[in-house]
Amino acid sequence: MTDPADLTARLIRCPSVTPVEGGALILLAEMLEAAGFEVHRVDRNGTPNLFARWGAKGARTFGFNGHTDVVPPGDLGSWTHPPFSGHVEDGIIWGRGATDMKSGVAAFVAAAIDFVTATPPDGAVILTITGDEEGLGRDGTLALLDWMAAEGERMDVCIVGEPTNPDIMGEMMKIGRRGSATYRIAAKGVQGHAAYPHRAKNPLHALTRYLNDLIAAPLDQGTDHFDPSGLQITSIDCGNPASNVIPERATAVVNIRFNDLHTGTSLSEELNRRAAALSAETGVELTVQTDISGEAFLTQPGPFVDLVRDVVTQETNRQPELSTSGGTSDARFVKDHCPVVEFGLVGHFMHQVDERVPVAQIHQLKTIYQRILEKYFA
Amino acid sequence: MTDPADLTARLIRCPSVTPVEGGALILLAEMLEAAGFEVHRVDRNGTPNLFARWGAKGARTFGFNGHTDVVPPGDLGSWTHPPFSGHVEDGIIWGRGATDMKSGVAAFVAAAIDFVTATPPDGAVILTITGDEEGLGRDGTLALLDWMAAEGERMDVCIVGEPTNPDIMGEMMKIGRRGSATYRIAAKGVQGHAAYPHRAKNPLHALTRYLNDLIAAPLDQGTDHFDPSGLQITSIDCGNPASNVIPERATAVVNIRFNDLHTGTSLSEELNRRAAALSAETGVELTVQTDISGEAFLTQPGPFVDLVRDVVTQETNRQPELSTSGGTSDARFVKDHCPVVEFGLVGHFMHQVDERVPVAQIHQLKTIYQRILEKYFA
Repeated sequence: MTDPADLTARLIRCPSVTPVEGGALILLAEMLEAAGFEVHRVDRNGTPNLFARWGAKGARTFGFNGHTDVVPPGDLGSWTHPPFSGHVEDGIIWGRGATDMKSGVAAFVAAAIDFVTATPPDGAVILTITGDEEGLGRDGTLALLDWMAAEGERMDVCIVGEPTNPDIMGEMMKIGRRGSATYRIAAKGVQGHAAYPHRAKNPLHALTRYLNDLIAAPLDQGTDHFDPSGLQITSIDCGNPASNVIPERATAVVNIRFNDLHTGTSLSEELNRRAAALSAETGVELTVQTDISGEAFLTQPGPFVDLVRDVVTQETNRQPELSTSGGTSDARFVKDHCPVVEFGLVGHFMHQVDERVPVAQIHQLKTIYQRILEKYFA
Repeated sequence: MTDPADLTARLIRCPSVTPVEGGALILLAEMLEAAGFEVHRVDRNGTPNLFARWGAKGARTFGFNGHTDVVPPGDLGSWTHPPFSGHVEDGIIWGRGATDMKSGVAAFVAAAIDFVTATPPDGAVILTITGDEEGLGRDGTLALLDWMAAEGERMDVCIVGEPTNPDIMGEMMKIGRRGSATYRIAAKGVQGHAAYPHRAKNPLHALTRYLNDLIAAPLDQGTDHFDPSGLQITSIDCGNPASNVIPERATAVVNIRFNDLHTGTSLSEELNRRAAALSAETGVELTVQTDISGEAFLTQPGPFVDLVRDVVTQETNRQPELSTSGGTSDARFVKDHCPVVEFGLVGHFMHQVDERVPVAQIHQLKTIYQRILEKYFA
């Protein structure tokens, strides 16, 4: 039996702050090879990534995805126990990555090893583990999926082991995510004296109207599986020190978390349309620069979603909500490869000082993952 | 006969960039003393100011007010003739202060000297000339008026010799000015993740709504002698570099040019009332900091205004509009002392590179000032 709590503590002791490998993937590669997995390091542009398969290429394949990189620990003096100590006390493991998500990786690695050892399936298990989920993410899970496509490696379904439960194990799994895009709006008017506004064109007035229109009404009312889309203005900047001068330029940044009624591009078109209309009306030139982090996606409820939900219900005595809430995760990449759901630990303390996790919760998660594998291959 | 064009050129050669005296007030003091004026330097906190009176203290007194300080010349290489050369060519005098307002000061100094010399009046003429109108203005004309109050010096009426004509001599005089006040709005919300706005309070959303309400409708429709009040947003700033983070704080600056329907304080009360209402609704704390530069004022049309208008009409064949438009001037201080109107040159090239003035225009202005004095004491 592989102990996922002990593995979590050992992984925490690898200081793998994005994009440093820190020993975490090396440790996992050794364990998985010893258990009969075929292992490949799939590093790209210095980002460390690990691919592991048990069973034959091309067989019916269950996948897990996760990451061993962590966000920086912040002020070391604020931690009760050093962030890379993996200190265990009173059934709690302390350290950076305790919940996000060395415990999740440890749980599915332990579950996979014990499953293929105890009940070798007629099929394959693939683990994709990246060292860059917290950073740019351009050479992490994406690199693994690119490499798999080139090598003819394929998962039929995949679980991403990120924390999904707000407070209690079993209350939530994720079957999709809202999309996220950032729009930078630049307004260029004509500078002038505040006492003579007819000789100037105030970019801040056009920008204020533009932004007020954006926040005045909701983008939608939500859909069957998604919350309403949300729009947040995250900055407005001008930097004009002279209160008697109308400035020439101002900028704003808007972040939109959107559901399956939109795409990053459809929203860009709408924002550009509004900018063009207001430019024509005011004479202030409004332009929109678009940066799409991820599109909205949904794994339609069906056999795979039911299987995961049934096991979680059985093991936790709670029927998990099928949610699409929250920020982005690497599921936004995996969804282009195969059906993907997310289920993991309770997300308390993620990215915070004194991140920590109960040992019992890791064991429970390992059991859930192992039951899912058993049921999938039954 | 005192040549006001020659005096303008000599004043331009004094590099009196605010708050430097530059020799300008010394030159004027010598001329006025030689012409029989009682002269006092009334400097305060390093700001140079000149008071000059011809005639007896307490007599019926006509006043002129102006300034010899100038704004900086900017890029010297952009000037056709050096900005402090007072270069004269083809009937044009070039240099910083040519229109704003060494020419105006030269015109009223020459008019006053020639008037009291040629036709000594039964009364007095007081000239107040400051070296800080373009800067903070706290120790300029205000210092002169404070000193006069302490010394028992008094003007019955006063002309401020600032440029008042937009394009042609005689088309506009000013009988008041709109007030000016600056309001700094600070918004303090609760920081959070852009994907979880329900856990945050976005100060930019409250600020955008607040500002949009301010610019959505005009403050008023204007009054008998005043244009509508005008409001300009001159800066909005947040400085949040993270597009996935809702910021905690943002600020905006609003400048209002207001007519006699308002005071700086009544507007402050209105802005604070709106801030309190929106704070209560949104949970974002909106506070308003008020800085009143000057209140609106009006010299009611009557004998003094008629006298100036009649002379201008006679000398220019144009009946000047009685305007209250434009920015502030030291008339906002003089109005607390006595009825004040403004009449001067055409304001082209003020604060610009290659500031310049036609010699003929200065002579015309001197004649107008002298006729006004003659008519006032007739």
